[in-house]
Amino acid sequence: MDKAAAGWKKIEELAGEPGIQSMKAVEEFSPRLAQLALEFGYGDVYLGEALDLKQRALITLSSLITQGDQGRGLTYHFKAALRVGVTKEEILEVINHCSAYAGFPKAIHALHVFKEALENA
Amino acid sequence: MDKAAAGWKKIEELAGEPGIQSMKAVEEFSPRLAQLALEFGYGDVYLGEALDLKQRALITLSSLITQGDQGRGLTYHFKAALRVGVTKEEILEVINHCSAYAGFPKAIHALHVFKEALENA
Amino acid sequence: MDKAAAGWKKIEELAGEPGIQSMKAVEEFSPRLAQLALEFGYGDVYLGEALDLKQRALITLSSLITQGDQGRGLTYHFKAALRVGVTKEEILEVINHCSAYAGFPKAIHALHVFKEALENA
Amino acid sequence: MDKAAAGWKKIEELAGEPGIQSMKAVEEFSPRLAQLALEFGYGDVYLGEALDLKQRALITLSSLITQGDQGRGLTYHFKAALRVGVTKEEILEVINHCSAYAGFPKAIHALHVFKEALENA
Amino acid sequence: MDKAAAGWKKIEELAGEPGIQSMKAVEEFSPRLAQLALEFGYGDVYLGEALDLKQRALITLSSLITQGDQGRGLTYHFKAALRVGVTKEEILEVINHCSAYAGFPKAIHALHVFKEALENA
Amino acid sequence: MDKAAAGWKKIEELAGEPGIQSMKAVEEFSPRLAQLALEFGYGDVYLGEALDLKQRALITLSSLITQGDQGRGLTYHFKAALRVGVTKEEILEVINHCSAYAGFPKAIHALHVFKEALENA
Repeated sequence: MDKAAAGWKKIEELAGEPGIQSMKAVEEFSPRLAQLALEFGYGDVYLGEALDLKQRALITLSSLITQGDQGRGLTYHFKAALRVGVTKEEILEVINHCSAYAGFPKAIHALHVFKEALENA
Repeated sequence: MDKAAAGWKKIEELAGEPGIQSMKAVEEFSPRLAQLALEFGYGDVYLGEALDLKQRALITLSSLITQGDQGRGLTYHFKAALRVGVTKEEILEVINHCSAYAGFPKAIHALHVFKEALENA
Repeated sequence: MDKAAAGWKKIEELAGEPGIQSMKAVEEFSPRLAQLALEFGYGDVYLGEALDLKQRALITLSSLITQGDQGRGLTYHFKAALRVGVTKEEILEVINHCSAYAGFPKAIHALHVFKEALENA
Repeated sequence: MDKAAAGWKKIEELAGEPGIQSMKAVEEFSPRLAQLALEFGYGDVYLGEALDLKQRALITLSSLITQGDQGRGLTYHFKAALRVGVTKEEILEVINHCSAYAGFPKAIHALHVFKEALENA
Repeated sequence: MDKAAAGWKKIEELAGEPGIQSMKAVEEFSPRLAQLALEFGYGDVYLGEALDLKQRALITLSSLITQGDQGRGLTYHFKAALRVGVTKEEILEVINHCSAYAGFPKAIHALHVFKEALENA
Repeated sequence: MDKAAAGWKKIEELAGEPGIQSMKAVEEFSPRLAQLALEFGYGDVYLGEALDLKQRALITLSSLITQGDQGRGLTYHFKAALRVGVTKEEILEVINHCSAYAGFPKAIHALHVFKEALENA
């Protein structure tokens, strides 16, 4: 299986049909960014065996909360985290933990994005 | 046990005697920042039961890598992560994972800090 | 008075009834994040006597502008700043000052958020 | 010609009538921020002859993508980049390039803002 | 008095002879960056009358702590803050305040830079 | 030619023998991060034909200045920029341009790193 196929498979595992639709929208507008994201982001990176999908979800959410992601990335990865088995309680505690490391404004912003993600699930 | 005592105990668990000395240096110069860090950062935050210490270490490292921590925080938390049972391979993979989410410059900076932390351990 | 009560009182002082409603919305979804914010953020931190509420408002706004806060935090703290006696002219000058230290894109973003906060006040 | 006049002229060159309207909205609410932006941002900075407008557009877009600009600044400068002769393909490649240096979440956010900017052009 | 002269005068007021030497070092390597910093940063920005030098010092420090300044800017502005009358206690409380808004790693980094600035004063 | 080989070739083109030694040091400690950087960062990303190496250097420098890179990444890419034909004057103007978009503290930090890079070249 080539890297792009591995990437599509990983997106389906992480984010299901909505994830695939989301990447297809990227691909339609910028085939090369989709290719980079698929082959590198979802293909190569997720192939590493030292961390499982639940651990990666915690790491991804912490990075997105800390960088003050607008909402699109957070929404996508909150849903992906739930899908790979991170519980709602664990996600809330990631946000709590980040309040000390990245500050309350980013934690509270993330909380509202998470709440909306659950309501629109 | 009061919160400050809980905080000191958590620091010892996470970072051992060097961690305690490090917080004592903060306390000597700024008793109030030490108190806030102990009672809130190490007391309250780490009391949440939804995440264990290994999971918190992954989240902390991702936040520090993403915010481009100079080195002091990264060094402290790389050592703490090893101490609570995160393996060297898992830490390297946190850095790999962050290369896609926070970019290569921050990942490569973190790699060098980690290498130096191991050499000075 | 316990810390949480001190936190609620401080929120009322800073942000009035809308501030209380806002924290209650956080509390309903994540009681623990609300507790951390109340006891630490509004309780402990604001208890320090070395800075008054007007000075803290300037510091908070500068931090939010610099971190590129989306809008929720900025809106809340623009209103709180006015409430504790920072004038509109002083707030505009915080934004001007930050244009040199954090760049024009963040200053101009903050200006628009402030304008909307005044229009919806 | 004084600096403010040079600034207005540069805005017209970069962003046309919509750019002028946009700065006039800033000026109405905060004459001093508009003056700082005009005299320094558009006057002094763009007077440097070592870089041409196309090069400056690439640098500006990279800075905005990296700082996670909400959208207002990105939208303005995507349009300005096209106006001074940066092609759509070059802009897409700036975004691709930034995926490696600032991470995929910021690159994908920027892609969506660019897509919307083109649709509303 | 022209803007550059106003800028040099403001630097002397804020940072004394070491501040002037520091800007002269910038000027020797990049006359144009020194000019932009003098005329805009120290000339125009500090001319606004809505905030006094003590208030500006608080805002500057909060911005530098929040953006994770390496140390050069923080050291310069910690000393400038003391020079314009901000007390050591007030500076420590700026750092405490920022622990809640920008996270502990940045607050603790700033504390160490401040400690070193005082030791080398 | 496989992607890793393309990556090594691109590093040599951008950064010469010191660049190769630098990536070999990464590879020795973390073969997988080196592989990701080589295949994706230097292989895939730099293969895009819409931007040439000089344009990419401007974009990279703007991203590093804006994210407040400590120095390692900036030093590497200042040297690479000179190597691919960006002049010293153009680099100084990238820094000037970024003073308006990312603030003076990051511009002045970058200036000092650039000065040291030239002195150690």
